[in-house]
Amino acid sequence: MRIYSATCLTLLCSLFMAFNAQAATHGTPSRGQIIKASKPSEWHALDPADTLYMYLPKGRVVIDLAPQWAPEHVANLKTLVRERYFDGTSIYRVVDNFVVQWGDPKAGKPGAKSMGKAKKTLPPEFVRHVNKSLPFVKLDSPDAYAPEVGFSGDFPVGRDPKNHTAWIAHCYGTVGVSRDIAPDSGNSNTLYAVIGTARRIDRNLAVVGRVVKGMPLLSSLPRGPKDNMGVYHDPKKATPILKVRLASEVPKSQRLPLEIMRTDSRSFHRLVEAAAHRHDAFYKTSPGHIGLCAALPPIRPIPQ
Amino acid sequence: MRIYSATCLTLLCSLFMAFNAQAATHGTPSRGQIIKASKPSEWHALDPADTLYMYLPKGRVVIDLAPQWAPEHVANLKTLVRERYFDGTSIYRVVDNFVVQWGDPKAGKPGAKSMGKAKKTLPPEFVRHVNKSLPFVKLDSPDAYAPEVGFSGDFPVGRDPKNHTAWIAHCYGTVGVSRDIAPDSGNSNTLYAVIGTARRIDRNLAVVGRVVKGMPLLSSLPRGPKDNMGVYHDPKKATPILKVRLASEVPKSQRLPLEIMRTDSRSFHRLVEAAAHRHDAFYKTSPGHIGLCAALPPIRPIPQ
Repeated sequence: MRIYSATCLTLLCSLFMAFNAQAATHGTPSRGQIIKASKPSEWHALDPADTLYMYLPKGRVVIDLAPQWAPEHVANLKTLVRERYFDGTSIYRVVDNFVVQWGDPKAGKPGAKSMGKAKKTLPPEFVRHVNKSLPFVKLDSPDAYAPEVGFSGDFPVGRDPKNHTAWIAHCYGTVGVSRDIAPDSGNSNTLYAVIGTARRIDRNLAVVGRVVKGMPLLSSLPRGPKDNMGVYHDPKKATPILKVRLASEVPKSQRLPLEIMRTDSRSFHRLVEAAAHRHDAFYKTSPGHIGLCAALPPIRPIPQ
Repeated sequence: MRIYSATCLTLLCSLFMAFNAQAATHGTPSRGQIIKASKPSEWHALDPADTLYMYLPKGRVVIDLAPQWAPEHVANLKTLVRERYFDGTSIYRVVDNFVVQWGDPKAGKPGAKSMGKAKKTLPPEFVRHVNKSLPFVKLDSPDAYAPEVGFSGDFPVGRDPKNHTAWIAHCYGTVGVSRDIAPDSGNSNTLYAVIGTARRIDRNLAVVGRVVKGMPLLSSLPRGPKDNMGVYHDPKKATPILKVRLASEVPKSQRLPLEIMRTDSRSFHRLVEAAAHRHDAFYKTSPGHIGLCAALPPIRPIPQ
């Protein structure tokens, strides 16, 4: 079992704990056991109208959209998708330990693709107002970037009770809209996904969703050169985007039916507690707390 | 300048800020400006006796060793390197958003390579005792995994004043020693480097250093299958390790002379402050604090 050293403790990697009899014998349920024991009502299917498929040569990236957080950016993104704006564009920038970025490398420059009916500028939807209808499950962990952290619907979020704002945190897989210096210059024609350490840009860009399947297709791409901010010098090194579709545009037989655990469920609470308080044999010191970005809700194919 | 959207804010990517006239006009020095203005005495050269070179087909990975933190693990690692134990082994496990792991995939199993004079078990050097001689520059940021965080020598560390312990944090690039369930089962024949979210294993594994150059050679490797804990089913997919050498074993003409900014220097303090309090034109909301793993000391070739 040597290979299990330094081991499979990621949320994406739940099999190990499911098989880890050691964990069970110590009385703490494993991640796999908690998921297995969860009720169907503790999960919800992704809404095809708010799910994006990005088709790359090696597979499909699935993005869970966040219209509650950046309504105009998500609406403009959907317009661009329906206009087939992204078909034939590319992932042309990969910054190690930060983001990958995609779209038309000529966007905003001569020779750029037409954005059709989509808007060119949008209001800066970097944070949203907290009201009573906004769900919030607080995570009891100190955080460098937000006075309060927790979960709202499918997303990890920060919250500032002083000014009643909340925002999606730049955890692994978070998808946002690139912009220029002007705060209203983002228009969803250029997107990025977080592949590393990026919380420091929280509250400064409009977040439109999170990659829930296919991150390895993005995270393992060759890094672009530092002397060009991660943008490949040679456009041929960019990864072609074959097409981008809303799941609702795709015939049902070609959809990937996925469900995500409800962050207000008892089972999600158990997962977070189990991650923060490890009593299995491998752990000599339990973390005590778990970081926001280490406690993302699990995603799985909808059981048939 | 569209491509600078969602932009070059990584510590590894300082050029952007150096060129960003906008930042300068707002009176806050950029990262590039702070580094440029730093004094030679605020940097120190990596010690060739405590620097590892891992040669891969596409380039060299440089590891800054941490003998002050896991003396027996580092000593055993050096013994294994001198025995040429790692030459011809491979990076055989890549877990997305967690770690890459290398060594002999058969370690601990029939057919394993001989470890020569190296020890088979070591005491669990997961944390160390805090004494007055241990440097500590406190970072004023809340942290989910440690009561106190900061920097000690070249490394980002956590500290617990209650039991007078400190440990290197599992930030991007941290190199540790894999082990089995038994705490003394690690012996430096299998190592991992952090490529994602891994702070939750702090204090549970012996950390032997940090990758200071060449992370993209590790982070962009194809991910291994989830159903096998990230271990490639096909050994041919593993990345060959041509050889591993201490820098001191390599002729001077073949060394990479690197220096790292002293974390107790005035310039490093300025870098941390500038990262936490952004007043350049791009930022609409300054982070206020910067996370431990987002504030690693810069590394550069020694100026000639």
